[in-house]
Formats: sequence, C-alpha cells, structure tokens
Amino acid sequence: MHRLGKYTLITDSAPSIVASAGVVGKTEGEGPLAKEFDRIFTDDLMGKDSFEQAESELQREAVERLLSKASMPAESVDMVFAGDLLNQCTASTFGLKDFGIPLACMFGACSTMALTLATAAAFIDSGACSSAIAVTSSHFCTAERQFRQPLEYGGQRPQSAQRTVTGAGAALITAHRSDCPSLRAVTYGAVTDFEIKDANNMGAAMAPAAAATIHRFLEDTGTKPDEYSKIVTGDLGFVGSQLLCELMMRDYGIDISGVHEDCGKLIFDREAQDVHSGGSGCGCSASVLNTHYLRLLKSGELKRILFVATGALLSPTTSLQGETIPSIAHLVLIEKPENLN
Amino acid sequence: MHRLGKYTLITDSAPSIVASAGVVGKTEGEGPLAKEFDRIFTDDLMGKDSFEQAESELQREAVERLLSKASMPAESVDMVFAGDLLNQCTASTFGLKDFGIPLACMFGACSTMALTLATAAAFIDSGACSSAIAVTSSHFCTAERQFRQPLEYGGQRPQSAQRTVTGAGAALITAHRSDCPSLRAVTYGAVTDFEIKDANNMGAAMAPAAAATIHRFLEDTGTKPDEYSKIVTGDLGFVGSQLLCELMMRDYGIDISGVHEDCGKLIFDREAQDVHSGGSGCGCSASVLNTHYLRLLKSGELKRILFVATGALLSPTTSLQGETIPSIAHLVLIEKPENLN
Repeated sequence: MHRLGKYTLITDSAPSIVASAGVVGKTEGEGPLAKEFDRIFTDDLMGKDSFEQAESELQREAVERLLSKASMPAESVDMVFAGDLLNQCTASTFGLKDFGIPLACMFGACSTMALTLATAAAFIDSGACSSAIAVTSSHFCTAERQFRQPLEYGGQRPQSAQRTVTGAGAALITAHRSDCPSLRAVTYGAVTDFEIKDANNMGAAMAPAAAATIHRFLEDTGTKPDEYSKIVTGDLGFVGSQLLCELMMRDYGIDISGVHEDCGKLIFDREAQDVHSGGSGCGCSASVLNTHYLRLLKSGELKRILFVATGALLSPTTSLQGETIPSIAHLVLIEKPENLN
Repeated sequence: MHRLGKYTLITDSAPSIVASAGVVGKTEGEGPLAKEFDRIFTDDLMGKDSFEQAESELQREAVERLLSKASMPAESVDMVFAGDLLNQCTASTFGLKDFGIPLACMFGACSTMALTLATAAAFIDSGACSSAIAVTSSHFCTAERQFRQPLEYGGQRPQSAQRTVTGAGAALITAHRSDCPSLRAVTYGAVTDFEIKDANNMGAAMAPAAAATIHRFLEDTGTKPDEYSKIVTGDLGFVGSQLLCELMMRDYGIDISGVHEDCGKLIFDREAQDVHSGGSGCGCSASVLNTHYLRLLKSGELKRILFVATGALLSPTTSLQGETIPSIAHLVLIEKPENLN
C-alpha cells in the first residue's frame, strides 16, 4: 500500500473479494432485497436460547456460507477481522470461536464492515496474509435492549429513528484475481463530533463523518463523484442521507446526489414496513454490500463504488451521562472484475 | 511482512517504537513500578465529572505525552490503533477525538496493547503508514461498575480475583531506527475456550490462550524460551501465571518458568497492597510495557522479549447468561536497539 494525499491508501496489488455472503432476519427478508440474501432466518432466535446467541449464529452462518462458496476450509484462512455492536464484541468472539482462525477484533459501530474490509485489504496487499475474512453483524433484539429499551416496552419512536438490521455479512479477500471485484483504495476516518446528542437521530450524527471522509478521499485522489458508479453509505437512513448531500454541497461545494445511495434506505420498504428512517446496525451495510452491491459489481453493472460505512460512537453510558455522539466513517473503493469490459 | 510457519508474521523492515508513555492512577503509583511512570494521577476522577471521562483523559494524556516526547504534532501521525474495555470502546473514541488522527478502533479486552501494537507494526512495515500510535487504557472504577458490582457495594472478592489497573499506555511506531527498540514479529491469537465460567478467575480463563499463542510462535520460529530475555504476559496475575507455566509444561513439554514474567504480578505489591491475584485490564500491560519494559530494552538490559497480552472475552451479559469465558492472546516480539551490543 502507498499513500495518496494525506489520508488515502492505494493498494499496490488490488486484493480481490473472491466470495461474499449475507444472511438476515425475518423483517429484512420481507423487504425489497429479499432475493439477494443467502439465507433468511424466519425465527429471530435462530434456534438459540438468547438473542445474543442468535447474533453470534448470524456471524457463524455468514462465515460458514462464505467458506462453502469459496470451497475453502477454515484452517486455510489466515485471519479474520470482525466486530459488532454488542458490549465487548461478543457476537464476533462467540460466533467465530469454533473456526479457530486468528482473530483481530475491531470496533467501528456501524462502520465495521468498511473498517474490517479495509484492514483485511491492507493485510492481503502487504503479503501478511494470503486470505482474510471481514465479517460483522447486528441484531434488532440485542441492539434494542442494549442501546434503547427493553423489547417488551413498546415505546413510540420518532420518525428520525432507524431500525437495527438483523443480519450479518462476510467477505473473503485474497490476492488479486481478474474475475473478481477488487479493493483499490481505503480511507480510514477520524472521529468527528458535531455535538448531536439525540440517540434517535443517528443519521444526523453520522452524516458529517461521512461527508468528511468522502471529501478527504475525493481531494486525495483528485476525482469527482461522477467518476464512481455509486457512492454507497451505510447507514445514514432517510434523514442522514439527505443531510449528507446537503453537507457535501454546503461545506465542500460537491454534489453527490446523483450517485449517492444508502444501505439503510435500500434494505426496507419505507411505505410497507414500519421502519421510520430506514435500517442501521453493522449488519445493514454488511448484508447489503456482500450481496446486492457485490453482485452488481461482479456482473459489471456497477464499475466502481465508494463504500462508506458510518458509525455512531455512543454507548448507553455516554448517552445517560449526557455526552455527545461522536461519529466515524471509513471508506473502501471497490471495482468490478478486471476481465469485464 | 511475511509468514513464518502457519501463524507467525515476520516484519521485513523491523519498525521501531520511537517513543512510549505510561500514565497511571493513585494505587498504581503506590506500587513497586512508581518511578517508571510518566505521570501518576492522585485523583481517580482526573479532574473530570465521571470515571468514564477520567478513563478517556488517561488515554488523551498518554498520547499527549507520547507526542511531546517524540516532538511530533498530532497532524503528522498517520493512524492510531486504539481500544479499551468500556462498552463500545468509548474511552478510546472520546479520549482520542480531539487529536483528529484517523482511528482504527480494536477490541481485544486486556490483549489490546499487543493487538494494536501488532497491527500498527503491520501498517508501518507495509508502508501504508509512516507513523502510527498504539494506545489503550483501563480504569478500576469504570471496569468495576461495568463488569462486576457498583463501587459502593464493597463485596468480598476471592483471592483469585484481579484488580483492574487505572492506567494507559501508548507507543509511537515508525520506520526502523537503529537507536530504538524494534518490532520483529507478530502472532495473532485465535479464540480459545476452556469453558471456565468464573469471572473472578480470569487468569485461569486466559492462561490457555497465552499457552496456545506462545506455543504457536515457538513452533513457527523453531526457537526455545531461553532464546528470549523474557516472555512477558499481561495480565494473568499470580493464579494465571502459575497455571500458564504448568500448561506449557503439561501440554507442550516446554519450560518457560525461567523467563516468564507477568505485568499483573509486577504492577502491585501483593503484600502491601490489597490486590489479591494482581493487576488486570488493558491499562496494566500497556502502562508496564510502555515504561518498564521499553526502558529495559532501550538500555539493552533486555535483548528481546515476547510480549504476550491476554484478553478474557466476556461481557456482563454473557456472564449473566451463563456463558463460558473465551479468551485470546496476541504476541509481539520486541528487540533492543540495533546499535547496542
């Protein structure tokens, strides 16, 4: 890897995503992307005793399907980069422990898919690993009771609130292959803090972080939004997405509205499903990227996308203590297979 | 970086630790390593409104001192790898947000210092960064109330329990310099689970993870324990340290007792301070490595150490749900400056 500008890392070898998988829960399976997913669980407990165990099962299942698609045994994978929203990242540690793969656990809240993908790309590009998995998950029931209210409470939620996706997504990265999508560049984000304190409006908290990282990448590379098929954020939802486009225009004079899409807006049907501002959670962008977007890249329908996952760095403790919600966004440039025109 | 054996990564350029800093709380400042630390806070709140803010302040202070020692402005640092024990790693995200450095947050429980150091080494070695910080922290008061009991409760603790260290440690890594200690190899650990469920005996839960990682490294490199000045674990404490030596002998026929030391045993005076099985928490091995051990390496008193930090991957939720305590250990080989004989 080498640096371009101050913040952007260009891969020298263009590591490839040779397989990917996305698994989701019942509500996600009733949404517009239903046909994309590798598995739809109809029971939110996934046959386990607790929702926390169920979330671990989501990660295990995503990795299991990934390995099966790649016909690769777990012992052959050099490293796994994983993380989730649960306290002490237990969805990852419990979900992945039986694979026996060396694990670097990461925390980026809902930016985790980009964070782990970026870091896996760096390890493949340098030759430190010949194969690495990036994986993350979230679960509506674990997130709701950890971050907000007991599930039984049933309080009214404002229209700016997002629904945590029950789902997991995983990608297997290896050295470059001309028939697979490749990872071309990475921009790690810094923490931004616009002093928003409303945990029911995380899209607004995260939009400035996304704007800052996208701007840094465009500036470092000297490129314009229309040079990308899509700029895909995850997960600003409806409120945050609009704000992102406004901020990009106001602060940097850059119009991304023509190419911007958001995983949180795609995964649910806003009219038919009661999801307010859309989807959120690590599993949202993970399950959408690793199915929908990678399929479109593999077929050449999309040529190159900026995948920009955003994370709200709050905890229930910091919220109760009246702290702000700092945010972060990490970016990965993914291109279609080289052997497609 | 290149692989040696199945699990070990050898750095090609031997990145250097050009500066390090360790700051601690009052109790740690009354222990045997008092003279080593860069700052001893006498107030556990560090002048802040909450213990959580205080822990962020520990990380901020460690990085501030690090940058000052290296005469380097924060803007010149390419990346920071950080993590901590708090839910959603808020000690790191809040503590580091004002520096504006791109942040990859990691979670390894008490193994975080080795995890972040290893990853920073990988990024420097590949040329992805020219400077990177690895930093972590823990705080007795935040950990106690998050993982165990309210501070006011004052329950009796068994002799196998360890005391979470109030402290933070940070290291600045750059390209190789012959006058500084260097990072020569890394072994990332996999999750091990010996089905221990007693959260008051984490040394026992973590010892098998340390044994597995040390064994993998020795096997990959074809080396023996006496080829290292010290094999330093952090933080098994008194109970876990004894168990580690026994496990290494029983399972692998390897005697490490002659070179083994543990940060959790060093930081407190077991007789004079009421600390039971010793210190624990990310800040324990971080503050001890970044002061005591790096000083001994810099002076050449120690020639090469294996720094093996261990993490217990439990959460309050998994404990209450009756789950086991899976563990992990990551290893870094650090050598004295090349220009010393």
